[in-house]
Amino acid sequence: MKKFTNINDLGGNLPEALKEASEIKKDRFKYAELGRNKTLLMVFFNASLRTRLSTQKAATNLGMNTITLDINQGAWKLETKRNVIMDGDKSEHILEAIPVMGSYCDIIAIRSFAGLENKEEDYTEKILNQFIKYSGRPVISMEAATRHPLQSFADLITIEEYKRTIRPKVVMTWAPHPKALPQAVANSFAEWMNAAGYEFIITHPEGYELDPAFTGNARIEYDHIKALRGADFVYAKNWSAYTDPNYGKVLSTDRKWTVDVRTMGVTNNAYFMHCLPVRRNMIVSDAVIEGPQSLVIPEAANREISAQTVLKRILSNI
Amino acid sequence: MKKFTNINDLGGNLPEALKEASEIKKDRFKYAELGRNKTLLMVFFNASLRTRLSTQKAATNLGMNTITLDINQGAWKLETKRNVIMDGDKSEHILEAIPVMGSYCDIIAIRSFAGLENKEEDYTEKILNQFIKYSGRPVISMEAATRHPLQSFADLITIEEYKRTIRPKVVMTWAPHPKALPQAVANSFAEWMNAAGYEFIITHPEGYELDPAFTGNARIEYDHIKALRGADFVYAKNWSAYTDPNYGKVLSTDRKWTVDVRTMGVTNNAYFMHCLPVRRNMIVSDAVIEGPQSLVIPEAANREISAQTVLKRILSNI
Amino acid sequence: MKKFTNINDLGGNLPEALKEASEIKKDRFKYAELGRNKTLLMVFFNASLRTRLSTQKAATNLGMNTITLDINQGAWKLETKRNVIMDGDKSEHILEAIPVMGSYCDIIAIRSFAGLENKEEDYTEKILNQFIKYSGRPVISMEAATRHPLQSFADLITIEEYKRTIRPKVVMTWAPHPKALPQAVANSFAEWMNAAGYEFIITHPEGYELDPAFTGNARIEYDHIKALRGADFVYAKNWSAYTDPNYGKVLSTDRKWTVDVRTMGVTNNAYFMHCLPVRRNMIVSDAVIEGPQSLVIPEAANREISAQTVLKRILSNI
Repeated sequence: MKKFTNINDLGGNLPEALKEASEIKKDRFKYAELGRNKTLLMVFFNASLRTRLSTQKAATNLGMNTITLDINQGAWKLETKRNVIMDGDKSEHILEAIPVMGSYCDIIAIRSFAGLENKEEDYTEKILNQFIKYSGRPVISMEAATRHPLQSFADLITIEEYKRTIRPKVVMTWAPHPKALPQAVANSFAEWMNAAGYEFIITHPEGYELDPAFTGNARIEYDHIKALRGADFVYAKNWSAYTDPNYGKVLSTDRKWTVDVRTMGVTNNAYFMHCLPVRRNMIVSDAVIEGPQSLVIPEAANREISAQTVLKRILSNI
Repeated sequence: MKKFTNINDLGGNLPEALKEASEIKKDRFKYAELGRNKTLLMVFFNASLRTRLSTQKAATNLGMNTITLDINQGAWKLETKRNVIMDGDKSEHILEAIPVMGSYCDIIAIRSFAGLENKEEDYTEKILNQFIKYSGRPVISMEAATRHPLQSFADLITIEEYKRTIRPKVVMTWAPHPKALPQAVANSFAEWMNAAGYEFIITHPEGYELDPAFTGNARIEYDHIKALRGADFVYAKNWSAYTDPNYGKVLSTDRKWTVDVRTMGVTNNAYFMHCLPVRRNMIVSDAVIEGPQSLVIPEAANREISAQTVLKRILSNI
Repeated sequence: MKKFTNINDLGGNLPEALKEASEIKKDRFKYAELGRNKTLLMVFFNASLRTRLSTQKAATNLGMNTITLDINQGAWKLETKRNVIMDGDKSEHILEAIPVMGSYCDIIAIRSFAGLENKEEDYTEKILNQFIKYSGRPVISMEAATRHPLQSFADLITIEEYKRTIRPKVVMTWAPHPKALPQAVANSFAEWMNAAGYEFIITHPEGYELDPAFTGNARIEYDHIKALRGADFVYAKNWSAYTDPNYGKVLSTDRKWTVDVRTMGVTNNAYFMHCLPVRRNMIVSDAVIEGPQSLVIPEAANREISAQTVLKRILSNI
């Protein structure tokens, strides 16, 4: 494996990847020599808790050294546009910064969220692709503008661990949030659920349609109660509008969509999932997230496993 | 040992703990295999220099991996109240954040100062206790709302190294400071001095009485010259008022209480101690802190030893 | 070697140091046991990207543990003046902070830029010298007020790798920048080029004369086209005025001095160098920095090599 930015980088064999993840979870230190004298550089353009900790832990389990760089904290602002006279507040161009970063590490991991101001710039994954093109290193996405594959892989591992039927019914439901969030987690989750072959339904208010490139053949259902009926897994997530002319906008904060005991009541005693961080009583009620069917903590714990599986594959190929 | 948040966690045998600390100081790398494949997560809600460096060094001496997380820097603000509709600036609830952090490490260390606005919230150690309850990991306090036990343990080690009599006279003196500081260091020091069985006196202006739960049978003397007379160790510290209705307030910045050559003159050529950081010429004069009896640097150096002793005990028990 | 703050610390034998660097570059992990149980503390008073990453990587290559401390981020502001009543926003005096930092590490590396407000304070290297005097540890400069020796050493390594004649013509040219920058990189580069015995010319607008203590016998040429004629290496750098009464001021932002295809055209197909970060189209045009003669990336990559050579020498002497 030479990079990990979307599901295709796993090589099309999901069962094999899941088996590998499961073996790693049983013995995290089995490959503690694989990363010897190898350095993972983690570059954050945005804040992080789970990703920061789980990716560092995963690399350490493999014997790697890790370096964390918070852009705009300890470093400086980077210019990303070309043909600019750099006489403002940005001290360095990303075209220099990327190959320089690449020269001090063996694998480079990047977090760079969608700006939500320019759909084309976001959906062409401008920054991620510059890292792929100019770093000279295998690149791992720690959430880019349009996808969050380490999260989706951890989600898939979690569903496989908890599912009660071969082909569970998984419902991704939009839920309200006070701020405009990217579509990355939702896009990515749709992509992975489609690949896993589950029964997969997406429900959201009108106007929140996602890019069909990610949702594929998933059923879209605007009536969330109808969608949730009989669900085995409820995956809640907020995202801002994708479709023009509302790209990046908050169209609704209707708390009718908050996942609570009432809405969970129509499911097949479904497990509740969320990638975290989660706004309580906006996305989900206290009772549901603290209830016995909540998987948010084991789901987060599996972030270490998805990251370690990816790092192991890339290390084996360096 | 399953946690370290106060002196009782040492199991009541101070001489044994001091002996262990002394052995570690002689050979810091003797247990360099004990922490192999174990990760210490250090979570800072407040700034730190000594604690950050000494705890990381101590963990490294034991072969541990360390991850440092500055909350509000690189991560985001955490909600700590329950039953809140999280539509403000806080992105995650501590009830999710704590078990998630716990899932990526083997031991978790927390720094979370008193807010000084709500005495009950501070003195019930709300945040520290949530980490103990929800992290699923052994918890080490790197200074909580009411105690700073790694500091007090280092203070005790230092006094044992420098004392000239079996039972020295130790005087903790309040000293002025421009900002309101927690009582944690003072509380903790009182607790440890009482346990050590030294002759222990506390001196401060009226209105600065500490919680008797910590000061116990220590003699309180409002005349600082009388208190300091014949002292073997002078431990200076500022704290804000504890007693109602002045909780968390600065009642005095009287520089008469600044420890200087004059006040040190009445002591038994006492050693000067302070936990640092120290405001020069507020807490202590240049001449005293730079003088031959100043122990502030060896005292700080012993922070590595107290942290390593605690980590070693916890690692031995995982 | 007991410290590394300027070229003299290499002991006067540049060819030997270059040979050592070259050997390290061929096998970075040959001395992976040398730094076992040794800790490098990196203290940053200013932002950093290359220095932060390359120095950490170099230390890791030698098996060292590293701790990074960003002063004013995670720690607090330090007082540097003596005889001050510390009742303002600075919580700790550097006279305590330095020996404390020294007590938790084996080697201490510091970045502390010139303030550009007080020439005497800058040119006496007040902060760097306090670290040398009070830390009790070997000190490495990661750019101090007047020099950036790890950069100059990397520059020298790079020139040695790419030079096409025994004694190449190296031209350091001032170039425009919107903000006032220190003279450290320019001073240091001059010092190293003089020591290397190359043909070395400095060109800048009038008023930008550097301290002769650094430029020595280098030829100063105010006509940059004349200076660049026949150059083998063009080293671009901005600096603010050194001479009184303009110390620390920006006297010109004349883009005539921007290195572009036209000015490079008069050289001997020169290589282009810059320490980075670089302001594109202020210091250098897009075409030159992206062109085939640009060495900025291999030059930055050699920062790992210069740092590792220095660390190896110091470790061998502890």
